[in-house]
Amino acid sequence: MKVTILGTGSATPSLLRNPSAQILSDDHEYYLIDCGEGTQNQLIKLKVKANKIKNIFISHLHGDHYFGLIGLISSLNLANRTEPLTIFGPKGLNEIIIIQLRYARTTLHFKLEFIELDTEKAYAIIDNEFITISTVPLIHRIPCCGFLFIEKQKKRNIIKGKLPSEATIEEIIALKNGMDVLNPDNSVKFNFKDFTQEPAQPKSYAYCSDTAFSEKIINQIANVNLLYHEATFKEDLLLRANATLHSTSKQAASIAKLANADKLLIGHFSSRYHDLTENLLEAKEVFENTEIAIEYQIYEI
Amino acid sequence: MKVTILGTGSATPSLLRNPSAQILSDDHEYYLIDCGEGTQNQLIKLKVKANKIKNIFISHLHGDHYFGLIGLISSLNLANRTEPLTIFGPKGLNEIIIIQLRYARTTLHFKLEFIELDTEKAYAIIDNEFITISTVPLIHRIPCCGFLFIEKQKKRNIIKGKLPSEATIEEIIALKNGMDVLNPDNSVKFNFKDFTQEPAQPKSYAYCSDTAFSEKIINQIANVNLLYHEATFKEDLLLRANATLHSTSKQAASIAKLANADKLLIGHFSSRYHDLTENLLEAKEVFENTEIAIEYQIYEI
Repeated sequence: MKVTILGTGSATPSLLRNPSAQILSDDHEYYLIDCGEGTQNQLIKLKVKANKIKNIFISHLHGDHYFGLIGLISSLNLANRTEPLTIFGPKGLNEIIIIQLRYARTTLHFKLEFIELDTEKAYAIIDNEFITISTVPLIHRIPCCGFLFIEKQKKRNIIKGKLPSEATIEEIIALKNGMDVLNPDNSVKFNFKDFTQEPAQPKSYAYCSDTAFSEKIINQIANVNLLYHEATFKEDLLLRANATLHSTSKQAASIAKLANADKLLIGHFSSRYHDLTENLLEAKEVFENTEIAIEYQIYEI
Repeated sequence: MKVTILGTGSATPSLLRNPSAQILSDDHEYYLIDCGEGTQNQLIKLKVKANKIKNIFISHLHGDHYFGLIGLISSLNLANRTEPLTIFGPKGLNEIIIIQLRYARTTLHFKLEFIELDTEKAYAIIDNEFITISTVPLIHRIPCCGFLFIEKQKKRNIIKGKLPSEATIEEIIALKNGMDVLNPDNSVKFNFKDFTQEPAQPKSYAYCSDTAFSEKIINQIANVNLLYHEATFKEDLLLRANATLHSTSKQAASIAKLANADKLLIGHFSSRYHDLTENLLEAKEVFENTEIAIEYQIYEI
C-alpha cells in the first residue's frame, strides 16, 4: 500500500497548503480519504485518474474535509463515468450532495451509493479478500471518525521459472495456499516450500483526523505500520487544541508511541505555521520516527 | 469601475483555467460575480480582501459557478467577519448553503442574507446613489441570469486650489450639483463652471454567462461599456453550443455588435481549447474590439 498526500492544511485557507485529502492505493484499488475544496484539481496535478476511485471516505462534515466532493462527483459525471461510486460518511452528507445535484438538474450516469457511518463505533465497513477497512471513532466538535486499513494475509508467491509447466491451476492454488501437492500414492509431488516463497507481510494504515488526543483509539490501531494523525497545533497552543478538540504534534506522537506504530505522519497544520521544523521536533521528542506529511509526496507503507 | 477575472474555464476542470468568478470594483465596493470551486484561493492570490465583499451574485446553480461559495462563507466566518453579507442567486442556493452550515454546526458571526432572484425578469436588485445593478435573463438549461452594473451620474468635481477657503459645505454641494452660488442680491458669487469640472461619464458592465445566443438581451445591455459574454465553443461546435445552451465566440461577438458595446471580453472556455487564438479570431471577424478574458488580469472600464 502507499498513501499520496493531497492536502495538509486545516480549515483556514492558505496558499501554503491544501485542505485534507489523501489517496490510499494498493494493487487493487484507489481509496480517497477526505476531499477538501480543490481535491479534483490535486488529482489532475498528480495524474491520478479519478475514475479509478471506487470508494470515498469522509471523516466529518467540516468543510475542509469534504467541500471538494460535490465538484469531484459532478466532474466524474461530465467525464461519463458509468462505474458505481460508494461514499462513506456521517449523516447529512447524502442530503448535501443530493440537493446540489437536484438544483443543477444533474442526472448521474453512474450509481452513487451513500453508506452512513456510525462515527461512535469501531466497525468494519469494507471486508473482502484483500482488505478490511474500519471506522476509528474520534473526538471532535461534530461526529467524526478516522479509518483503519488492514490488508489481508496474502497468498504465497510462486517462484518464477521453477514450477514445471504441466502444473495445473488447482495445483498452483494449493501451493500458493501453502499446501503440498500429492501424487495418487500420497507421496509429495510438489513441496510448497520448494516452489513458493513467503508473501509480503500484510500492511496497515490508520488515518486519524480531526481529533482531540484520545487514548481510546490505541487498542484499535495498535502496531499499525503507518499512522497519519492530525497535529493542528504546537505544544504552546495546547489550550487551544483542547478547546477546539484538535491535537498538538506532541499528542499525535504520544498516540503513535502508545500504539507502537512503525511510523507517524503528521498533518492538518494550522495556517499560522509557515515553517514546520518546530512542529516536527516536538513530535520527534516523543516518537522518533515521525515525518511531516508533504503534499504530492507518496509514502510507501 | 474595473473587473478582475478570477476564472475563465467551464464545467470540466482543467489546470489551464479556473471556474467562473470575477470581482467588479468601484470606488465604494467589491462585488463578487459567481464563485466557482477555489475562488477563495484566487482571492488570496490576488490579495483581494474577501472581507471587503458585501454583495455576491450567483448566476445559476451549475457547480462551476458556485461550488466555491460555501468555502468562502465558512472562511469569512473563521476570519471573524461581522459585516452582513448579501447573496443574490436563484432559488435553492439558500437551502444548499444553510444545510451545509447546519451539519458543520457553524454559527455565523455575521448576518447572511439571501435574495432569491427571478431569473426570467430584468429588474433592479440594487439601486443606490452610486449604482444600479439589474438581472439580465439568460437562456440556459436551468434558471440563469446575468448581471448589469450601471454607475449613476456622478457629481461634478471641484477644481483643486481654486475655490476660496471660506466656501461653505452648502456652497460646495451646490457647485458639485452644477448650480451657481448667488450673493444676497442675486448676483453670482461662484459660477459652478469656474470652480468645477465635468465628472467622468458613468460606466456600465454586463456579465452574461452561461447562455445560448439570445437577442432578447440586446435592448437591456445596449451601449454597455464592457460586455463579458460566455464563448464556450468555436463555430465548428455550433450544434453542440445549441444543444447545451451555450454560445460560440462568433455568437458572443454578434451580441456585442448588436448591442453596440464598446468592448467585448469572452470567457467560459471549454477545457478542450488550449490555445485560444482561433476563438479570438472568430469573434474579431464579427466584433473587432474583443479580448480573451485572462485570469488575474484587471480590466479598466
